[in-house]
Amino acid sequence: MRRTRRKAEETRQDILATAEDLFRERGIGRCSIADIATELQMSPANVFKHFGSKTQLADAICDRHIHRMIDRFALLNDPAPAPQKLGIVVRRLMEAHLSDIKENPYLFEMILMMSDADLPSGRHYKHLIDSLFGEVLKEGVAAGVYTCRDPEQLSSTVASAFSAILHPVFLVKTDPADLHERCEGLIELVNAALQNPLAK
Amino acid sequence: MRRTRRKAEETRQDILATAEDLFRERGIGRCSIADIATELQMSPANVFKHFGSKTQLADAICDRHIHRMIDRFALLNDPAPAPQKLGIVVRRLMEAHLSDIKENPYLFEMILMMSDADLPSGRHYKHLIDSLFGEVLKEGVAAGVYTCRDPEQLSSTVASAFSAILHPVFLVKTDPADLHERCEGLIELVNAALQNPLAK
Repeated sequence: MRRTRRKAEETRQDILATAEDLFRERGIGRCSIADIATELQMSPANVFKHFGSKTQLADAICDRHIHRMIDRFALLNDPAPAPQKLGIVVRRLMEAHLSDIKENPYLFEMILMMSDADLPSGRHYKHLIDSLFGEVLKEGVAAGVYTCRDPEQLSSTVASAFSAILHPVFLVKTDPADLHERCEGLIELVNAALQNPLAK
Repeated sequence: MRRTRRKAEETRQDILATAEDLFRERGIGRCSIADIATELQMSPANVFKHFGSKTQLADAICDRHIHRMIDRFALLNDPAPAPQKLGIVVRRLMEAHLSDIKENPYLFEMILMMSDADLPSGRHYKHLIDSLFGEVLKEGVAAGVYTCRDPEQLSSTVASAFSAILHPVFLVKTDPADLHERCEGLIELVNAALQNPLAK
């Protein structure tokens, strides 16, 4: 039994790696489940056993990328005060997204293709980003620099406020100089909100 | 000469109206310049003389909609104090965008199709939105409620902070209840920033 399960997981990983290579080479729009099966010398039925649709496959590939990206954010042990740390986190996230779009344009194609669907990878991304901001907020509140009452709830609002420098729709079409100016403006705005001594 | 110019403008308006009808009926992806010319009993060359590409045509249609939408925002004479007015403007903008997406889904298709191009209608939209926020900021500063030094410059940052409730990418995929919660959270966050007595 254990052997079979390991085998299934290996097959799943093989399919993901091959699909990612083909999506990268040809673009997701020009690549079918049958193409992936052929490349793996496997029957399409076997691929479908692991991933019920191309969307599910794309979703799993996005999820791998989200994991790898967020793993690079183990900077929260940085001793900087919260307002500075917020800036560091936001700039790093934006740079990570920008280089992803440059190095893996097929990822962007997938995200746009799936952007009107509510998929596990999107929810997972949102959860990780919210937590990242939540940690900074909690630290700031603990240190008495931030004045908000409910950091947990506020983290999602703060993450939304940075959409215009984190979502690929904006990253792709905005001029890099404008993007950096917008990024600094938003960091300053959000820090002003979080440090307002009169805020609820 | 004047007569010819008026004639050209009439033809331009005819093309726009017919293109809009066809885009609405069939979707922009399934509609060519040739289809529009046939509908108008015109040669495709004549359509091309007015609009060099389908993108230019879509851009002009978007621009008409932006004008009509912003015209509905003559609420700035409202006597409410700036922080309340900011909330009114943001909620109204979001509702206007939501009803546009519902009533004119082909508009959303066009915006997504054009979202990686830097087009006049996009720049025009950004300019109008920035001005709308700029007016509220200036009023707030004049009344001593907002503390920011440069309302002109800040208006663009404030507009960006609301992207997650104004850009169609988010409006289409987010659950309405979550969207309204996000909207209220962002209004509160931005108002806290603008009212921070210590802010630069």
